[in-house]
Amino acid sequence: MSTVYSNLSVSADGFLAGPRQSRENPLGEGGLALHEWHLERAADNRAETDAIVDAGAFIMGRNMFGPVRGEWDEDWRGWWGEEPPYHGPVFVLTHFPREPVVMAGGTTFHFVTDGIESALAQARAAAGDRDISIAGGASTVNQFLAAGLLDELRLHIAPIVLGEGERLFAGLRGLDMEGTSSRTGARAIHVTYRIRR
Amino acid sequence: MSTVYSNLSVSADGFLAGPRQSRENPLGEGGLALHEWHLERAADNRAETDAIVDAGAFIMGRNMFGPVRGEWDEDWRGWWGEEPPYHGPVFVLTHFPREPVVMAGGTTFHFVTDGIESALAQARAAAGDRDISIAGGASTVNQFLAAGLLDELRLHIAPIVLGEGERLFAGLRGLDMEGTSSRTGARAIHVTYRIRR
Repeated sequence: MSTVYSNLSVSADGFLAGPRQSRENPLGEGGLALHEWHLERAADNRAETDAIVDAGAFIMGRNMFGPVRGEWDEDWRGWWGEEPPYHGPVFVLTHFPREPVVMAGGTTFHFVTDGIESALAQARAAAGDRDISIAGGASTVNQFLAAGLLDELRLHIAPIVLGEGERLFAGLRGLDMEGTSSRTGARAIHVTYRIRR
Repeated sequence: MSTVYSNLSVSADGFLAGPRQSRENPLGEGGLALHEWHLERAADNRAETDAIVDAGAFIMGRNMFGPVRGEWDEDWRGWWGEEPPYHGPVFVLTHFPREPVVMAGGTTFHFVTDGIESALAQARAAAGDRDISIAGGASTVNQFLAAGLLDELRLHIAPIVLGEGERLFAGLRGLDMEGTSSRTGARAIHVTYRIRR
């Protein structure tokens, strides 16, 4: 059976983005440094960089997809330009319906208004026997963790301290995991946890 | 020159102890599970277990030393019985003076009332060319980090989520570190950071 994983860049103090995220600064103050390991040091972190988008389908929260709130009164098509790196279906969690947005290179954004379990069922159907990535952000990942729907966490721990922002594991407790791998990479320590049910 | 390090068991969400620490439950609710890797699986984590007390002198906060508050109106001699595992001088940060307490096996608790820099100077003098351990708890370690007095963090990340408690890195930001090692152990992933000045 395919794995439902989340592949996340996180600060040493547990934040997936810095404070005050905005259209101009989507990762929040200091948040870009979380991604140095693959944006600037991809050659030194080849396997982990390639694995970020190695899935048959993706699920993300609306905040990760873009800064537009409320109704889709703007033709927002994601942060990633005309050819996003996903090359497959991306299910965006939202309260506001919207027709699918087809991008170059095989990425299609689908908008799901009936919750995370529905999004996961649609992603499973689309992914076939490939894995499913819960891409982010923190709120979405924490919802999947709380619901017991995640099999694996792949964390890239950047050697920085953000102090505030969007926190992985917020609101959770009692989660039982097993560390299955770790590697000291350039600008990140790569850690994998299997989530116990 | 000797290294000033802190060797800490931490939850995946960054806590060094669970909530509601007390005399009956010194590690707080759920906090004991942080230490499974060396309390129950020492044979599988031999090098890391032995390294916990490999220092020429130790510094700890009063909360780590014991539950007594205010004046030393009780003959509290630590949580560790008659022969504590330190086998060397331990400098306890407190606002209330007290005569040194000599224990079996070479451990002596000294009480320092004039702050962390004084404690570090005394620990350096006592340790000679051996390393100095900032043993905890969170408040003490965070003070040393904020003051730029720590060279190395040795974290043992337990695969649990506590949700609340005493948080490593609380109140800090902008700390720049470098991950220097990692190993997947039994019930902990062992990670070392060098702190950049």
